[in-house]
Amino acid sequence: MTVSPFDSALLGPLLSDAETALMFSDTAALRAMLKVEAALAEAEARCGVIPAASASAIAAAAGALIPDAAALAAKTAEDGVPVPALVAALRRAVAVSAGEEAAQAVHWGATSQDILDTGLVLRLRRVIAILEDRLDALIQALAGLADAHRATVMPGRTRSQQATPVSFGLKAAGWLAPLLRDRDRLAELKPRLFLLSFGGASGTLGALGADGVKVEAALAEILDLAVPPMPWHSQRDGIAEFAGWLALVTGTLGKLGRDLCLLAQTEVAEVRPGAGGGSSTMPQKSNPVGPETLVALARFNAGLAGQLQQAMLHEHERDGSAWPVEWLALPQMAVAAGAALTHALAVAGSLTVDKSRMAAQFEASHGLLLAEAASFALAAHMPRPEAQALVKEAAAKATAAGRHLFDLLAEMSQAPVDWPALRDPARHLGAADAFIDRVLTAARNA
Amino acid sequence: MTVSPFDSALLGPLLSDAETALMFSDTAALRAMLKVEAALAEAEARCGVIPAASASAIAAAAGALIPDAAALAAKTAEDGVPVPALVAALRRAVAVSAGEEAAQAVHWGATSQDILDTGLVLRLRRVIAILEDRLDALIQALAGLADAHRATVMPGRTRSQQATPVSFGLKAAGWLAPLLRDRDRLAELKPRLFLLSFGGASGTLGALGADGVKVEAALAEILDLAVPPMPWHSQRDGIAEFAGWLALVTGTLGKLGRDLCLLAQTEVAEVRPGAGGGSSTMPQKSNPVGPETLVALARFNAGLAGQLQQAMLHEHERDGSAWPVEWLALPQMAVAAGAALTHALAVAGSLTVDKSRMAAQFEASHGLLLAEAASFALAAHMPRPEAQALVKEAAAKATAAGRHLFDLLAEMSQAPVDWPALRDPARHLGAADAFIDRVLTAARNA
Amino acid sequence: MTVSPFDSALLGPLLSDAETALMFSDTAALRAMLKVEAALAEAEARCGVIPAASASAIAAAAGALIPDAAALAAKTAEDGVPVPALVAALRRAVAVSAGEEAAQAVHWGATSQDILDTGLVLRLRRVIAILEDRLDALIQALAGLADAHRATVMPGRTRSQQATPVSFGLKAAGWLAPLLRDRDRLAELKPRLFLLSFGGASGTLGALGADGVKVEAALAEILDLAVPPMPWHSQRDGIAEFAGWLALVTGTLGKLGRDLCLLAQTEVAEVRPGAGGGSSTMPQKSNPVGPETLVALARFNAGLAGQLQQAMLHEHERDGSAWPVEWLALPQMAVAAGAALTHALAVAGSLTVDKSRMAAQFEASHGLLLAEAASFALAAHMPRPEAQALVKEAAAKATAAGRHLFDLLAEMSQAPVDWPALRDPARHLGAADAFIDRVLTAARNA
Amino acid sequence: MTVSPFDSALLGPLLSDAETALMFSDTAALRAMLKVEAALAEAEARCGVIPAASASAIAAAAGALIPDAAALAAKTAEDGVPVPALVAALRRAVAVSAGEEAAQAVHWGATSQDILDTGLVLRLRRVIAILEDRLDALIQALAGLADAHRATVMPGRTRSQQATPVSFGLKAAGWLAPLLRDRDRLAELKPRLFLLSFGGASGTLGALGADGVKVEAALAEILDLAVPPMPWHSQRDGIAEFAGWLALVTGTLGKLGRDLCLLAQTEVAEVRPGAGGGSSTMPQKSNPVGPETLVALARFNAGLAGQLQQAMLHEHERDGSAWPVEWLALPQMAVAAGAALTHALAVAGSLTVDKSRMAAQFEASHGLLLAEAASFALAAHMPRPEAQALVKEAAAKATAAGRHLFDLLAEMSQAPVDWPALRDPARHLGAADAFIDRVLTAARNA
Repeated sequence: MTVSPFDSALLGPLLSDAETALMFSDTAALRAMLKVEAALAEAEARCGVIPAASASAIAAAAGALIPDAAALAAKTAEDGVPVPALVAALRRAVAVSAGEEAAQAVHWGATSQDILDTGLVLRLRRVIAILEDRLDALIQALAGLADAHRATVMPGRTRSQQATPVSFGLKAAGWLAPLLRDRDRLAELKPRLFLLSFGGASGTLGALGADGVKVEAALAEILDLAVPPMPWHSQRDGIAEFAGWLALVTGTLGKLGRDLCLLAQTEVAEVRPGAGGGSSTMPQKSNPVGPETLVALARFNAGLAGQLQQAMLHEHERDGSAWPVEWLALPQMAVAAGAALTHALAVAGSLTVDKSRMAAQFEASHGLLLAEAASFALAAHMPRPEAQALVKEAAAKATAAGRHLFDLLAEMSQAPVDWPALRDPARHLGAADAFIDRVLTAARNA
Repeated sequence: MTVSPFDSALLGPLLSDAETALMFSDTAALRAMLKVEAALAEAEARCGVIPAASASAIAAAAGALIPDAAALAAKTAEDGVPVPALVAALRRAVAVSAGEEAAQAVHWGATSQDILDTGLVLRLRRVIAILEDRLDALIQALAGLADAHRATVMPGRTRSQQATPVSFGLKAAGWLAPLLRDRDRLAELKPRLFLLSFGGASGTLGALGADGVKVEAALAEILDLAVPPMPWHSQRDGIAEFAGWLALVTGTLGKLGRDLCLLAQTEVAEVRPGAGGGSSTMPQKSNPVGPETLVALARFNAGLAGQLQQAMLHEHERDGSAWPVEWLALPQMAVAAGAALTHALAVAGSLTVDKSRMAAQFEASHGLLLAEAASFALAAHMPRPEAQALVKEAAAKATAAGRHLFDLLAEMSQAPVDWPALRDPARHLGAADAFIDRVLTAARNA
Repeated sequence: MTVSPFDSALLGPLLSDAETALMFSDTAALRAMLKVEAALAEAEARCGVIPAASASAIAAAAGALIPDAAALAAKTAEDGVPVPALVAALRRAVAVSAGEEAAQAVHWGATSQDILDTGLVLRLRRVIAILEDRLDALIQALAGLADAHRATVMPGRTRSQQATPVSFGLKAAGWLAPLLRDRDRLAELKPRLFLLSFGGASGTLGALGADGVKVEAALAEILDLAVPPMPWHSQRDGIAEFAGWLALVTGTLGKLGRDLCLLAQTEVAEVRPGAGGGSSTMPQKSNPVGPETLVALARFNAGLAGQLQQAMLHEHERDGSAWPVEWLALPQMAVAAGAALTHALAVAGSLTVDKSRMAAQFEASHGLLLAEAASFALAAHMPRPEAQALVKEAAAKATAAGRHLFDLLAEMSQAPVDWPALRDPARHLGAADAFIDRVLTAARNA
Repeated sequence: MTVSPFDSALLGPLLSDAETALMFSDTAALRAMLKVEAALAEAEARCGVIPAASASAIAAAAGALIPDAAALAAKTAEDGVPVPALVAALRRAVAVSAGEEAAQAVHWGATSQDILDTGLVLRLRRVIAILEDRLDALIQALAGLADAHRATVMPGRTRSQQATPVSFGLKAAGWLAPLLRDRDRLAELKPRLFLLSFGGASGTLGALGADGVKVEAALAEILDLAVPPMPWHSQRDGIAEFAGWLALVTGTLGKLGRDLCLLAQTEVAEVRPGAGGGSSTMPQKSNPVGPETLVALARFNAGLAGQLQQAMLHEHERDGSAWPVEWLALPQMAVAAGAALTHALAVAGSLTVDKSRMAAQFEASHGLLLAEAASFALAAHMPRPEAQALVKEAAAKATAAGRHLFDLLAEMSQAPVDWPALRDPARHLGAADAFIDRVLTAARNA
C-alpha cells in the first residue's frame, strides 16, 4: 500500500528518494533498535551490570534476528510502540541460543523510548550524511553556474516586473548563498541531534541505581553519540530544530525551482530545465517537471515543519500523543529533502541557459530595464524627482510607441547624457561580480 | 519502503487503516484511471466520436491490463504525472488485441488531469462510503453511551479544574453532537466533490469540437458522477473542502481522545479505555493507546488541512507544483480519518466507566464542585457578590481543613439553606437530560 | 501598537479592511458582550427567573455603559477572560442606577464563555453580512468579465507552458465558479454558526435548575440565534468550519491574484491590474500590488485555517489553552477575507485586458498553441501516435526556425488538412462558451 | 482597532507584551527606516557619492521628521510598501530645510526593500536583546527551582499514567535544558540575522556603479551590522530560521505550561501557579491562566513558523506576495515569544509546590509507582519476565483491593526482597541529581 507517494513504486522516482527512504523502512527501523539493544547490553556488561556472556549472547542474537514487521504489528498496535514486541522477540531468540539468564538481561533498565529514539538518531545520522554529500555537490554545481555566467546578462525581475540588469551568475549565486548557511547550520545542530537517548522509565535511570551514569557513558561511546545533559524523552527541540533545517533546505530549493519555472515559461524561455516532461495530448509541451517538483516538496515540508513545532508540546515524562506525530512527519520531511536535493542536482546539471534570449529581452523591453540607469544619468543634470518623472513619462511612451527609452529621452531632454554608451546592459551590473566572488569564496572555504 | 507509517507493516495497525489505504495503492490508482479511460471510450462511441468497436476493444484491454507500477515509474518521473505512461501501455495493449485504429482512439480528446482527477474522485467515493459507515456506527455507539450514562454523575471540568457536576452521558453527547453536523456537512459537500473532471488540454474540450459537451454528459452518466459547471482542473475548492471535513472529523475524535486520556490519568481513573498498552519496563502500566492515537491523528490532519488550503493556489489552467501537494497530503488525511474512526469505535465499544470513582470525586473535593450551587442558594438570602465571596472563603477553608464546603457554610452563615438536600450532585445536572434527548433525537433522525 | 498589519494605520489600507476590523475592536467586543448580558436579563425576566425591573435596569445600564478596555485589562489578564471584569463593571453600574437587588441579577446562571462566544457570533453575523455583499458584487463583476470576454482568445497555460487556446471569458468564469460554491457553502454553514452559546458553568445550565431550557429559548429568540442541540463550549467544529470557509474564499482569490500577477509580467503583459504600484528607484515599474496582496492574504489564511483545526482539541468542558488560539487567529482570517474581497473587487473593476497582446501570442508562438489541434487534424489521416510524433518534430523545428508550425506540417506531410482554416485560434475554443453559459446561469440563479 | 489580541488594550496584558510590541508599532517601523536613510546618506557622503552637506541635512531631517502613519497609508497601499511614501516625505523635509540638491540625495541608489529590511533587522536586534534578558532570567529562575527541589520526590508520568519516581527538581531541569540550547542557537543565528540589507533595485547596487561595495561597507559599519556575501532580498532563510527559533522557545515554554496545567488539575494539585484566575460563576475556581496562556502562545507560534517556511519561496529578485506574509506573521511570533517568556518568569516566580501532596501520591497509588523497582528487585531472584508478570498481577490486585503493592508481593512471592527498605521513593531517583548537576553546570557556564 502506498498512502504516501514517498512509498509508491509509481510516484517514487518523481517525488521520493530511494536512498534516504531506505533508512525509514520497517526493517531499517527494527535493525537500528536491535543495534541499540546490543550496544546497551555491551555497555552494561562493561559496567558489570549484566554478565559479559549475556551481553555477547544478546549482541549475537540481535545481529542475527531478522524481525518480521508484520508479526510485531499486533502487539505494537496494542502498546503504541514497537519496542515491547521487539524486546520480546529478542528475548525469545536469546533464550533459545543462550538460556534464560542471558535473555532476562535484554533491555535491562531501559525504556521503549530509549531504544526507539536512539535508533532514530542512528538512522538520521546516516540520512544526514547522504543529504550532506548531495548538498556539497549542489553547492559545487551552483558555484560552477555562478562563475560561468558572470557575463550572462539578463533582466532582473522584482514583483513580477522586469527591473534592472542582473547576471545569470548572480542569480545562481543567490540560490547558492543560503545553502552555505544551511551547511553551517547543520554543523551547529549536529551536536544537539546526535545524542544518546537513555533515561529509563521516567528519565532518571532509576532502575540502574548508582550505575546509571556509567552505563550511559559507555553506551554513548559504543554508539559514538554524545551524552545530553539529561535524558530528552520529552525535550523535542532537537527534533524540531532538525525539521526546521530540512524545511530551510527545501525552501531554498523551492525558490530555485520557482525561479526556473518562471524562466522556463513559454513567454520567457530563458532557460530549459533538462529534457522537459511530455503531455498526454499536447505534442509541443516540455514541462519543467523538476523545478515544479522542487516547489511542491518545499511547500509540503514547510507545512510539516509547523507540525513538528506543534509536536514539541510533550506532556510530563513521555507523551503518547505528540510523539507519533513525529513518526508521521519527520521521515517524510527527510525524504522530501533528499528528493529535492536530487532534483536540484539534476536540474543544475542539465540546465540550458539561453543567453541570446536573455540578451534579446533588453531590446524587446524598449530599454525599460535601464530606466533606473537613465534616471541616475539624468539626475546628474537635474533634480532627481524631476529626472524620475521624465523617465516615467518616456517609459510610458516607449512601450506605446515601440521605441527605445533612450531614443525618446534624447529627444525629450537636453541633458548632455551619452545615451549610446549607457545602452549596454553589462555596464549596469554594479557589484554583481564582487558579490559572486564573495559567495564563491565562501563556497570554497566551507 | 515505508516513509509514512500509513504504509508500514509495523505501525500500520496502530496508525493506519488497511481498508481505506487500499484505495490509495498504486494498483487502485492505476485501475481507477483505466476505468476512466474505458468509460471515456464508451462515451465517445455513444456520441459517434470514435467507432463502437474501438471503444469495446479499449474497455476490454483496460479491464484486462495489469499495469506494473514500477514499469511506469521512469516515464512518470519524466512527465510529472503517470497518465502518459499508462496511456501508452493501454494503447500498446489495444493495438495488440484490436489493431492500430482502435489504439489511437484511446484517451481521445482528454488530458492527463482528466483521467487522474476523475480516477481520484471514483476512489474517494469508495473511501467516503467506508468512512460514512464507520461514522454512522460511531454515532450509534456514542448515542448508546449518552443514553446509558444519563445518571452517571461526574465532575465537569473547565480550564483543568473541577467545576460543577455533569453526567458522563452528557459528555458522550458532547462528543456525538459534532459528528452529526459532520454527517450533514458530508451530505452537502458530496455534490461538490463527486464531479467528473473532463476538460481536455486547457479546459475547453477543444479537441472534441462540437462534441465536447455531449461526451462530457455521457461520460458523467457512465461513471455516475455529476457534471460541474465547467472543468475544475485548477479550481481545487472541492478538494480543500473535503480535506477540511476530514480534519473536522479527526478534530472531534481528537477531542474525544483527549478527554479520555485525561479521564484515564492515574489520579483521575474515571475511565479505562480497553485493555491498555503495556510498557517495556513498567509492569503496572496500562496506557490509553487508542485515545492517544486519536489525538496524534487529529493534530496531524489539522496540519495537513492547512497544506491543502495552501495548495488551492493553482496557476492558470494547470499547476504542476500545487497539484502534487494534494497527492502528498490528501490520501494521508483520508487514511488518518479512517484510522481515527476505527480507534474511536474500538474505544467506545470497550470503555470501562467507573461510576463509583466518579461519585467519589464529589466527596474527595470537599463539596467544591457544588460551590456554584451553594452561591446560588445563598444568593436567595443575600446579594450575590456577597454570597460568592462567602463561598470563596469557605472553599479555601474546605481544602485546607479537609472539611465539606456545606458544613463550613452552615457554620459561617445563618442563611436558611437546606444544605443536606443540596448535597446530592445529581440534583444539579440542570438541563443535561434535555440536552441528551435533543442530541439523541438528532442522531436518530439523521 | 500594531503588532499585526491588520491593526496598522500605515499598512491598513494595503492589507487590512477597516469595515470588518471594526467588528473586532475592543469596543465592539465589549459592546457585543453587554448586549448579550442585557438579552440574558430580559430572557430571565420573561421566564420569571429575575424581576422584570432588574432586567430593565440591566438593559439600561448595559446600553449606557461605555466600558474602558484598559481599565478591564488587568483583571482580564488575571482571569484569562474579560467577562468577570466586565460583569463586575456592569454590576457596579446597575447597583448605582437601580440598587443591589438588580445588580445581583446580572449574569445570572451564565458563565463567561456563554457571553464571550455569543457575543462573537453576533459580531461574526455582521462580518458575514459584509463579506456576503462583497462576494455578491464580486460574482457580478466576474460574471461581467466572463460574458464580455467570450471572444477574447488567449493562450491557455498548463504547467507554466502555453498549451491550447482559451478565452479570457473562460478564465474569468473559472475564478467565479468556486465563489458560487462558496456562497452555497456559506448558506449551509450559517445554521451551524449562528448559534446561541448558553450552558452555564459546565454546560448543563445547572444554576438555572428547571428554568434552563426556557431561558435558553427566550434568549435565542431575543438575539435571533438558533438553539444548538446542546451547549457547544468545547465543540468548536462550527468555528473551524467557518475558518475553513474563509480560507476557501481567500484561496480562490489568491488563485485569481496569482493568475493576474503572471498575466501582468513584463514578458506577458496581457493584463494591467489598475494603476500599478510605483518603485522607490525604478521609474518604469508598475507593480501588480492588488493581485500580489491577494496571494499574500490567501497564504496567510491557509496557514491560520490549520491553526483553527488544531484548536478544535478542547479539553473537557472548557479549555483555557485552545480557546485563546481562536482569538489569535479567527479575527485575522475574517479581516483578511474582507481585505481580499475588496482587493478583488478593485482589481476586477479596473483591469485592463490587452486583447491584441493576447492575440499576438498565437503568432509569436509559431502556432505551437495549436499543436494539439494539428495532431487531431492529422490523426484523421494517420495513426494518432504517428501524428503526435510528427507534430512534435515540427514543433521543435518551428521554434528553432521561427516558422509557423502549420507551414512546416504542410511541408512535412501529405495529409489533406486545410491548414489555413485551422489557423484561427477562435475555432479551437471547444465548449468554452457553453461552460461560460453554465457558470453565468448559476451566478444568476444564486 | 484590534484585530489581533497582540494590539488590544483589553487582551494585551493577557496575551501580548508591551515592550516588544513597541518595536513593531508604526512609529518604530518608520523611525527605523528613517535611521537607515540617514545612515545611507552618511555612508554615501563618506564615499564621496553625495555631498557631506546633503548627508548632514538628510540626517537632521530624518531625526526630526515625525512621520504620520495615516498620511503615508494611501500611497503605501498603492505601492505595496511604505518606503516610497516615506522617502517622498523625507525629501520634502530636506528640500525645505536644505534645498533641492540635498533632497535629491535622499535614498540614493537604494531600493525600498533595503530600507525596510534593514530597518526590520535593527528592530529585531532590540527585540532579541529584550528576549535574551528574559531568557537569561528564566534560566536562572528554573535553575533555582531545579536546585531547590532535588529532594522533592514526585510521580513521574509517562503516557498520562504514573510511572516511576522523579524529583520536581529534575522536572524543572527538564524545562531548563532546552532553553540552554536555545541560547546557543541564538548566538549562532545572530550573525545570519543581523545583516545589512543593501542591494539596490535588483540586488546589484547597479545605480552606485563602482562605489557600491564601498558604500555597503560604510553603511554596515555605521549601523553595526554585518555585510552578507550578497544582498538577501529574496533569500529569506535568516528570517525563517529566526521564526523557527521563536517557535522553539515558545514550544519549550508551552511544554512547561502544559506540565503545570496538568499538575494543577484539581485531582493532582501538586502545584499552584500563582494566584489563579477567577470564574464569573464558580467561586471555588483558581484557573492556571499563566500556564494555559503558555500553551496557547506555543501553538500559535508553531503554526506561524510553518507560514514563514512557506514564505521562503520568493520569486526572482523581489516577491511582492511572499514578503508581506512575513509582515503578517513575524512580529506576532516575536511578541508571542516575549509574552511567553514574561508569563513563564511570573509562573516560575510564584509557583507553589505542594511537597506533601506529591509525597502522598506514592501511598495513594498503592505503591504502583514502584512497580518497576519491584520487578527489578524480584528479577534478582527469578527470570525478569516472570518477575514482571508477578508484579503485573500484584499491581492489578493492589488497585482493586486498595492494598500496597509491596505487601501483596511479600505475600505472593518467597523472594528474599527487603520490601520495607524499597518503600522510600527517594531511593529510586537514580541519576536524577547527577542530571540536575549537569544542567546547572551548563546553565552557569552559558
